[in-house]
Amino acid sequence: MSFYFIIEMLGTLAFAISGIRLASAKRFDWFGAYVVGFTTAIGGGTLRDLMLSQTPFWMLDSVYLIVTAIALGIVIVFGRYLIRLNNTFFIFDAIGLGLFAVVGIEKTLAAGFPFWVAVIMGTMTGAAGGVLRDILINEEPLIFRKEIYALACVFGGVVFWICREAGMSGAALQVVTAVAVIAARVVSVRFGLKLPTLK
Amino acid sequence: MSFYFIIEMLGTLAFAISGIRLASAKRFDWFGAYVVGFTTAIGGGTLRDLMLSQTPFWMLDSVYLIVTAIALGIVIVFGRYLIRLNNTFFIFDAIGLGLFAVVGIEKTLAAGFPFWVAVIMGTMTGAAGGVLRDILINEEPLIFRKEIYALACVFGGVVFWICREAGMSGAALQVVTAVAVIAARVVSVRFGLKLPTLK
Amino acid sequence: MSFYFIIEMLGTLAFAISGIRLASAKRFDWFGAYVVGFTTAIGGGTLRDLMLSQTPFWMLDSVYLIVTAIALGIVIVFGRYLIRLNNTFFIFDAIGLGLFAVVGIEKTLAAGFPFWVAVIMGTMTGAAGGVLRDILINEEPLIFRKEIYALACVFGGVVFWICREAGMSGAALQVVTAVAVIAARVVSVRFGLKLPTLK
Repeated sequence: MSFYFIIEMLGTLAFAISGIRLASAKRFDWFGAYVVGFTTAIGGGTLRDLMLSQTPFWMLDSVYLIVTAIALGIVIVFGRYLIRLNNTFFIFDAIGLGLFAVVGIEKTLAAGFPFWVAVIMGTMTGAAGGVLRDILINEEPLIFRKEIYALACVFGGVVFWICREAGMSGAALQVVTAVAVIAARVVSVRFGLKLPTLK
Repeated sequence: MSFYFIIEMLGTLAFAISGIRLASAKRFDWFGAYVVGFTTAIGGGTLRDLMLSQTPFWMLDSVYLIVTAIALGIVIVFGRYLIRLNNTFFIFDAIGLGLFAVVGIEKTLAAGFPFWVAVIMGTMTGAAGGVLRDILINEEPLIFRKEIYALACVFGGVVFWICREAGMSGAALQVVTAVAVIAARVVSVRFGLKLPTLK
Repeated sequence: MSFYFIIEMLGTLAFAISGIRLASAKRFDWFGAYVVGFTTAIGGGTLRDLMLSQTPFWMLDSVYLIVTAIALGIVIVFGRYLIRLNNTFFIFDAIGLGLFAVVGIEKTLAAGFPFWVAVIMGTMTGAAGGVLRDILINEEPLIFRKEIYALACVFGGVVFWICREAGMSGAALQVVTAVAVIAARVVSVRFGLKLPTLK
């Protein structure tokens, strides 16, 4: 069980819990909450894989299904105590965002697409699950109005590109990119940085 | 014209009518109602086929388009009398759910995926069309809050697995699975069985 | 830079601007507005390409990303003056609709599908981007209630079929089809033609 695997599962758990909690607030039943949590966790990567003409990653390993079940169990059992852990979940979510962005970028480059497609796919991998979650619960997508979220993935993509041009590769390149995404996210929330709105 | 074909068309008709009726309640025009009805009928199978890297089934046979047109005609002509037929449509819808679940399970297994993927795809084939319908008419997905619906497909998947392990196959396996889904759905509505909600 | 290319970019620009303006009205930030604009411009063609088992067209040429950035710049800089240009955008949008319908029809026929699939794909190429836009901003899809929009693409498909049966081909067939879509759209708005609603 590698470090990479643990990080990916923590990110999946954080994404699933965010979906399950928002679905609960809408009084969805357990099954509905599970579906929303699962969609939040795997939706971005699924869209990416469909556009890359690949089999959605979660169809090749049942661990994502199991982690979502654990997320549902956590919310059912510890629901009332989870509010105190909001900062913990925020960190997990940011870590998941960073890791998912790296996975999206590398998978797209491995499929032979140019770098700008990889940045879009990295951003989609990190942020589209949250958009699908908000569509399922019939809310306007949060990420289009709150602190910098998807843009942190774009920033990570630029960092990836610069570091790769500078000769970096492998695990070092992955870690630097993920840290860039996480840092961009943490800084934007810490200082309340938001993009301007139109009109 | 096989028994299987008649059942599939009845299920398609019931799904299309449910989409057209809900779209009408939102004052969509005829074309919008047709699109919502068609999406309700073919949406689940389309998502399944895209994830299985196959051509969406309705692109290979125009009959689904024609059945949706018949559904639109029925709602236009008999709209005010359809309320009395709610029980009939409920049965058609449950039959469609059972059949679509079986189709989804078998198509996924035939594509070489493990059984747990087949259960998800069976459930998606049966229930995702209704979710897409509710997204198009901008409502929170009904199936996540009302009586057991998608979970009936999961139950059918478990029954399929047990019966197949017990040596059953072919039409017998299909019928038993479909009947399990239909029975789960009918029993849950008859007795008002609902899953618990969170919080 | 061909005439065809200029038309396609004008259509893309008009679609992107419509998405960005509607997102702005919902107070989405710049990034959110960009995503909604891009989805409006490329969403229909992306759905078509996924269903045709092809790589989404915008992943092969960064020009769509750039045109959407130009659209965002136009709305940011000239936002308050754009209302006076509504008629201009309406024409661009109608031209885009006509061109996208033709592209969708031809790409589907080239992939070996029968004509009725091509008409659906042409309509989806033209109209589904607007539906995805309305889902993202959490509104009921406009095209299902306002003047004839998607149906103009279906009409164009019929015109394409008749003209092709009559021996027409190549650029002439494309232009006649696009003009048919544009004319249907302009006439329906000019005379307030709407489809009947149900109930």
